[in-house]
Amino acid sequence: MNDAMPLGPGAEFDAIRRLLERWGPLAAGIGDDAAVLRPPRGDLMVVSVDSSIEGRHFEAGWLSAREIGYRAVAAALSDLAAMAARPLGVLIALGVPGQWRAQLDELADGIGEAVGTARTHILGGNLSGAGELSISTTVVGSAYAPLARNGAKPGDRVYVTGRLGAPGWVVERLRAGEPPGAHRERFARPTPRLAEARWAADGGASAAIDISDGLGADARHVAAASGVSLDLDGARIPCVDGVSVEIAVRSGEEYELLLAAPRPLDCVEFEARFGIPLTEIGRVGTGTAGTVRISGVAAANVGGWNHFSS
Amino acid sequence: MNDAMPLGPGAEFDAIRRLLERWGPLAAGIGDDAAVLRPPRGDLMVVSVDSSIEGRHFEAGWLSAREIGYRAVAAALSDLAAMAARPLGVLIALGVPGQWRAQLDELADGIGEAVGTARTHILGGNLSGAGELSISTTVVGSAYAPLARNGAKPGDRVYVTGRLGAPGWVVERLRAGEPPGAHRERFARPTPRLAEARWAADGGASAAIDISDGLGADARHVAAASGVSLDLDGARIPCVDGVSVEIAVRSGEEYELLLAAPRPLDCVEFEARFGIPLTEIGRVGTGTAGTVRISGVAAANVGGWNHFSS
Repeated sequence: MNDAMPLGPGAEFDAIRRLLERWGPLAAGIGDDAAVLRPPRGDLMVVSVDSSIEGRHFEAGWLSAREIGYRAVAAALSDLAAMAARPLGVLIALGVPGQWRAQLDELADGIGEAVGTARTHILGGNLSGAGELSISTTVVGSAYAPLARNGAKPGDRVYVTGRLGAPGWVVERLRAGEPPGAHRERFARPTPRLAEARWAADGGASAAIDISDGLGADARHVAAASGVSLDLDGARIPCVDGVSVEIAVRSGEEYELLLAAPRPLDCVEFEARFGIPLTEIGRVGTGTAGTVRISGVAAANVGGWNHFSS
Repeated sequence: MNDAMPLGPGAEFDAIRRLLERWGPLAAGIGDDAAVLRPPRGDLMVVSVDSSIEGRHFEAGWLSAREIGYRAVAAALSDLAAMAARPLGVLIALGVPGQWRAQLDELADGIGEAVGTARTHILGGNLSGAGELSISTTVVGSAYAPLARNGAKPGDRVYVTGRLGAPGWVVERLRAGEPPGAHRERFARPTPRLAEARWAADGGASAAIDISDGLGADARHVAAASGVSLDLDGARIPCVDGVSVEIAVRSGEEYELLLAAPRPLDCVEFEARFGIPLTEIGRVGTGTAGTVRISGVAAANVGGWNHFSS
């Protein structure tokens, strides 16, 4: 709560005040029934919601409370990157069990870090008790011409940002009870590729998706939405050190971008500007709509990351 | 998923397809990483998020799955009413435990009913497994001049829409193991006062809040945010039949509106137009900022509805 808008008393409001103290100016202006924002003139609005639930999207023992908060918001912001939108702010609905309340400050700090890194703001939220920790993040952004997943055309080149495989490799090790190893940081602190996406859109990209279900599965989403096939070269897919392409194409929650573009994107300029590679990995084709072929990877190994488990 | 934007395969997408089938044209256009909408020219955007969690905001045995879905979305839309905003759409983050999956259609129908009644759309969402049923609804709206809770000025008249007390009375009976009685429908199917709020804003209202924490508590939020006191006349507070003013002022989740206005609002025209009363119940004063006095109700009985329990 900022000074301009004091709240009434009560335990719920005390906890909200604590969050707002941690967030400081990142959350300036909260306190009414809804947040008000002025859309940039001429832009379209872009909105999305993403949930992170204990035991579904993360295991409490794998990440610190700060990382859990950071990751939930970074993942949601990644959906704005997929649309080449500029963030205007986020809304956070927190369900916090009693045993998590002592870590509310840490959670808040992680949320604040993701928001601050993206140079955006916390517009509002909701705080409630719950049986399991859950963070639902709504992202609000804008773009003059949003990129969508349905714009890929036969002949387009297909690109991927960064290097894949770290989350899949780390989760596999953690599930086996092993230490997470060298790629833990890439898993725990993904970066939404917001500026990278706008660069690609300005450079004429025709379609984009963020890799949340795994490269193979997300490539299929693009192929299905665009009514095209994708032919990818397994040998060109950039993997983090020591991780096979089979793991990399199934690794979800990467939050790298898969892009299509009718004209070549300047991969050298991209890497100089953003410090990560941009790699051409294949072409859009005219095969059966929704199909993805990755040379060197068996079709059965192209599948995705399933969050919807009982 | 509409025809223009088919999705890939998988259990999560099958469940999403089922939801989208139930929603039909209410959800047209879903399927990208984020939804795109054009803000009405000159309007400000108004956004808010509200959560409804099993065992916190409702008990499964008290409401049908359809009512749970309806109520979650109606409650969220009520925050747009509080700002006198016109809804542009909602995003729904659903956490669905295994034992609730058989009722997903019913839940979807309730959500769809609330969305349809407000003449708005489902812009997007998120579906996940969870240990308890949770519905986080983000509402997106717009207004040329949103109403806020901080605009009340000394001398303003204070109004309330509808008649209060039904949810408090019903919940008290349900908690005691009694049948919910005559006011169950008002509890199970609240109506967000969207058109009523815009009418009041057009008529010069200076502040608004929706009654979610109880009239007494929400009056305090307005008083605190506006830096004023509120003096209400307990005898004028409109209660549903057979419910005392003590219950009515503490009854939360009413989703009626508390309004302040410098000039009289036309209560006769209001009732003719909307079929519910608009009642002048007091005045804004110059007492200690944030204080609310209700004549005939002891100060200790003005308190609120606390959703944040372990």
